[in-house]
Amino acid sequence: MTSVEGGLVVAQSGGPTTVINSSLCGVVQEAMRQDCFTQILAANNGILGVLNEELFDIRKEKRETIESLRRTPSAMAGSCRYKLKGMDASREDYERILEVFRCHDVHYFVYIGGNDSMDTADKLGKLAEEEGYDLRVMGVPKTIDNDLAYTDHCPGFGSVAKYLCASVMEAGRDTEALYTSDTATVFETMGRNAGWIAASAGMASRSKEDAPHLVYVPEVPFSAEAFAKDVKRTLKDIGRAFIVASEGLVDEEGNYVAEQKGEFATDAFGHKQLGGVSETLKTIVEQKVGVKCRYCKPGTAQRNAMHFGSLTDSEEAYMAGKVATRTAAEGESGFMVTLVREKGDDYRCTTGLAKLSDVANAEKKLPREYMNEAANHITDEMRKYAGPLIRGEVTIEIGKDGMPVYGRFEKHFVEKKCPAWAGAKK
Amino acid sequence: MTSVEGGLVVAQSGGPTTVINSSLCGVVQEAMRQDCFTQILAANNGILGVLNEELFDIRKEKRETIESLRRTPSAMAGSCRYKLKGMDASREDYERILEVFRCHDVHYFVYIGGNDSMDTADKLGKLAEEEGYDLRVMGVPKTIDNDLAYTDHCPGFGSVAKYLCASVMEAGRDTEALYTSDTATVFETMGRNAGWIAASAGMASRSKEDAPHLVYVPEVPFSAEAFAKDVKRTLKDIGRAFIVASEGLVDEEGNYVAEQKGEFATDAFGHKQLGGVSETLKTIVEQKVGVKCRYCKPGTAQRNAMHFGSLTDSEEAYMAGKVATRTAAEGESGFMVTLVREKGDDYRCTTGLAKLSDVANAEKKLPREYMNEAANHITDEMRKYAGPLIRGEVTIEIGKDGMPVYGRFEKHFVEKKCPAWAGAKK
Repeated sequence: MTSVEGGLVVAQSGGPTTVINSSLCGVVQEAMRQDCFTQILAANNGILGVLNEELFDIRKEKRETIESLRRTPSAMAGSCRYKLKGMDASREDYERILEVFRCHDVHYFVYIGGNDSMDTADKLGKLAEEEGYDLRVMGVPKTIDNDLAYTDHCPGFGSVAKYLCASVMEAGRDTEALYTSDTATVFETMGRNAGWIAASAGMASRSKEDAPHLVYVPEVPFSAEAFAKDVKRTLKDIGRAFIVASEGLVDEEGNYVAEQKGEFATDAFGHKQLGGVSETLKTIVEQKVGVKCRYCKPGTAQRNAMHFGSLTDSEEAYMAGKVATRTAAEGESGFMVTLVREKGDDYRCTTGLAKLSDVANAEKKLPREYMNEAANHITDEMRKYAGPLIRGEVTIEIGKDGMPVYGRFEKHFVEKKCPAWAGAKK
Repeated sequence: MTSVEGGLVVAQSGGPTTVINSSLCGVVQEAMRQDCFTQILAANNGILGVLNEELFDIRKEKRETIESLRRTPSAMAGSCRYKLKGMDASREDYERILEVFRCHDVHYFVYIGGNDSMDTADKLGKLAEEEGYDLRVMGVPKTIDNDLAYTDHCPGFGSVAKYLCASVMEAGRDTEALYTSDTATVFETMGRNAGWIAASAGMASRSKEDAPHLVYVPEVPFSAEAFAKDVKRTLKDIGRAFIVASEGLVDEEGNYVAEQKGEFATDAFGHKQLGGVSETLKTIVEQKVGVKCRYCKPGTAQRNAMHFGSLTDSEEAYMAGKVATRTAAEGESGFMVTLVREKGDDYRCTTGLAKLSDVANAEKKLPREYMNEAANHITDEMRKYAGPLIRGEVTIEIGKDGMPVYGRFEKHFVEKKCPAWAGAKK
């Protein structure tokens, strides 16, 4: 394909990460270098911004704001969890998006997100083709969960891993110092149905002494009995137990160990909301093992911890964004940029392309061999895989007041040109 | 008084902090400079180490381990929650401590801890005097709760404050990006009955946009109704709500908002164990306000977060330890070193001395004027007070693997010389 002249819309989707703004920075700075983009627009709050025709002009942002993207966590353009379903169920939404693109002469769409976003981008690209509208669609991978297929790993994962390793080391020292009274600690990580994040925190144990002593992931059914046994054995061995557990642990019947009840039990995507694995495991330790147990649940702080972000992760996120835009400018469409680990002893990462439709319909769980036989700690394979992703630290700006300085867009919205629309809003 | 030749025992007590090892480093490095100390011993796990005659020789530790104390969180000599009560109830324990000191020719005791430790040190000093044993007792303040009287602030507080400010800023950006679905977040801090820590996290809001939008402390009774109103108003104003709440919130009847039940409901000190303020507030938000609410509870990670520790805090902790040892070497006894804020526009901190007995029997709550009238956010007075304490960052060592490198003692225990004892152990 050859490129066309037209506007570019970039959007950020789903749960924020420490480095999703680095990808946005890569998209924007590369777009500024290319001639084919008549406008560089960001959608306010992900796809909602397109549906609601809330687009702001990136070129009107201060240069230092654009620069600050690489050291500012979370989604600076805003994100959302608005779910586009299949073409039949959500045709109106897809048509609306194309309408907005047409009104603003947008011919490029870069979507930074996970599976669902790649699915949306894919369907949108196909609909445009069907309707004869020239739209170049590219995806940039983003998820702390690290569960996208076709890419060696996902931007966002390395930073959450690095932060969790430091936090587990630190909270682990607390349990080490106070083991005569506060004998056990459960540390709950995100990760939903994939154990990548919990497993990554396993790297904090450089020696037997170090936390964590036990690690549990959703890929292997969780048994309270086996868990209590593991804790007892650990107490016998070293007098204390520091446990990392994924929020998404499931029992042998496939039920979440800590399923939430009530009105907010599922989100807009129908995903079950999880809460309370740490409280559940704490109760098991206190009741079945008989020692006091504390718990830590850093929650959303973990996926935005730029103050100890991974430089490797940040640079790769930037690269993925940059390559997506360059590839679109070169006339390609329908791909997500992938991260490719080059062969060899030293870690080196380049990029590739995967079809959006392929990525949309696959997910990558933690391989069983990344966990030990008892499924209660990680193996060297996991360390070899995830170790390189947490190297290097992002240098953030720190104010005179001792706190980080993060950027914020001014958001100069472009004039609305489309017919009013009854859908979306939020 | 004049000084005597004799051994020094140093012990760390209670909940670890990011900088309690900096105080230990100050004690040790100053002791190495003085001639009066025939031995420099550390008690293994606080006062338990003295009772159990588990003392290790600091001079046998590697020089780099001693250096690493200033950048290693938690209590490297070990800590404990073993409670010594009044002289009548715990006389055996106090006598045992003196026996151990006599056996090892120890004439100096530096205790790094909070109220309870100052009380122990005080009683011990008085008993020694009664028995005609020359013992110089000095206290070094340590508590993240910042509730010790007679000192402007407490080592440990500045670092937890700095880390929480960064974490609240970061998790706050998550809520900001995702407000259309994940509209509210509760962030639970430590601090027990004092609101210093929760209030310190209030400093993260440099502008109305910034998290936190609401801050709640234990000094003012918590009302679910008023809270729900506050959240609703905040949602109306800026479309999202980020809430900082202390673990120790109490209702109008004086009951903990989230009191824990069961076997581990109180610790050895009779302190009620708290858990679940964040879950409780999340439920209130979802039920009474009707929006989805997430929560973060960093737990013990917050008091050991050396990867973003306050340099001011670390240096003051070192200074307090150093001055305590020097003061003891000069022949004084029965004092805790205090931190004194010098008058003037620029922050400058020196040290003073307060009687152990005075410190033991007082506690310093957050002044009402550090909170606004509605008691739902901090005032400029709080910022003026706590702002200087979070300035500067500790430089930690980071390994090639991208994770912090923290030290550990080898613990060369000195030979036991005392009669066996039936008490303590743990």
